[in-house]
Amino acid sequence: MTDIQEKLDALLDRVRVLEDRAAIGDVLSAYGPAVDAGDAEAVGRLWAPDAVYDLDIGVMNGRAAITEMVRTSPHQDYIHGGCGHLLDPINIRLDGDTAVATCHSLLVRRNTDEDSFRVWRASANRFELARIDGEWKITRRTARLLDGSADARELLGRASD
Amino acid sequence: MTDIQEKLDALLDRVRVLEDRAAIGDVLSAYGPAVDAGDAEAVGRLWAPDAVYDLDIGVMNGRAAITEMVRTSPHQDYIHGGCGHLLDPINIRLDGDTAVATCHSLLVRRNTDEDSFRVWRASANRFELARIDGEWKITRRTARLLDGSADARELLGRASD
Amino acid sequence: MTDIQEKLDALLDRVRVLEDRAAIGDVLSAYGPAVDAGDAEAVGRLWAPDAVYDLDIGVMNGRAAITEMVRTSPHQDYIHGGCGHLLDPINIRLDGDTAVATCHSLLVRRNTDEDSFRVWRASANRFELARIDGEWKITRRTARLLDGSADARELLGRASD
Repeated sequence: MTDIQEKLDALLDRVRVLEDRAAIGDVLSAYGPAVDAGDAEAVGRLWAPDAVYDLDIGVMNGRAAITEMVRTSPHQDYIHGGCGHLLDPINIRLDGDTAVATCHSLLVRRNTDEDSFRVWRASANRFELARIDGEWKITRRTARLLDGSADARELLGRASD
Repeated sequence: MTDIQEKLDALLDRVRVLEDRAAIGDVLSAYGPAVDAGDAEAVGRLWAPDAVYDLDIGVMNGRAAITEMVRTSPHQDYIHGGCGHLLDPINIRLDGDTAVATCHSLLVRRNTDEDSFRVWRASANRFELARIDGEWKITRRTARLLDGSADARELLGRASD
Repeated sequence: MTDIQEKLDALLDRVRVLEDRAAIGDVLSAYGPAVDAGDAEAVGRLWAPDAVYDLDIGVMNGRAAITEMVRTSPHQDYIHGGCGHLLDPINIRLDGDTAVATCHSLLVRRNTDEDSFRVWRASANRFELARIDGEWKITRRTARLLDGSADARELLGRASD
């Protein structure tokens, strides 16, 4: 019986890891739809209250600053002109109650003069997440434009740390 | 023994959820390769017989209409000119034998006058799926161009319903 | 007890499949960050020593040839000019100690004359992987430009083999 119990507990731990990875994927795959919907509340729920969103073009401190960004210009101009915030497959490194997730992002915007879109920004992304009251939340997102600068390369190089 | 049996059953239920999510991911990640291969049968197998593919530019009713689209113009023109139908990370909400999956899609097409591709369409996507005879199938796909219209934003806003 | 033991073993097998799929996803989602970081060692670790990277524009034989590509021109020119190697959701077919993974890839490069990026290459990809000494490694990657040629369509059509 003890042997069975131990095997069951070990298996449960392995399933928990897979569930955590899925839950982290759920948070990050919810960001693009929420931000392109302009749904500030849905965006806000993905972040910890004291989260930091550190972009090459500025830093937002706290969930309220992030939801304010969604509600205001220029973000509202982008979504009303037509835009999409996309990610590519997310590399997740789980470590107990925290995790690091690395991927690329694209911001595509509709061209006004022709029937197509332009890739306006392509960035390197590092998401830091934590389990807070049983739910995974983004605690920090660092994004750097892939403009040839060392910043983006260094961020991506930390994926496998 | 009863305690162990109950724990085992509970764990089995959790593993089934993870397997369902993986199976849904398999269906949706198979769509792009099949449609860009021009393989109408492989595309058709991913949909329920009475599935609906509701695009901003038209509605296809039933699997036969969807496979006919793959076999004919303009789709065949796109793939022979060079194109790719891409998705970004898929947000899956599983509810027993049905699921909703939300993501962006890109249709990139090769430029004839230069050595690159253009993003011809960027869309918001909502896939509704059901387990039919033990296999996950798409029952409805709604796609709306990210052209600034309320349709696309509302579709994306329903991801977290 | 025998019944419980058998159920536990069966469940363990199912969890192993999910873990293998996650591990394969980890390898493939690590490629883009590593190659855009210009981190040749991190790229190299993802491939088997005798791996083959078969592109429409050339074939690299062995891990050393692949890491040499990362260290040299034109790859170093791309990353210093600003580029991103992105994938879309990866379709994984697992078969014991080997697997096939199919997806699209994009190579976006920063435009020097304006504040945006161009999709320089969009390709069909087939990754073959194997479990080697307990770790998943890429044994072969075949990539074909989505230029309308039969090669890319045939590669994508083999996803569901």
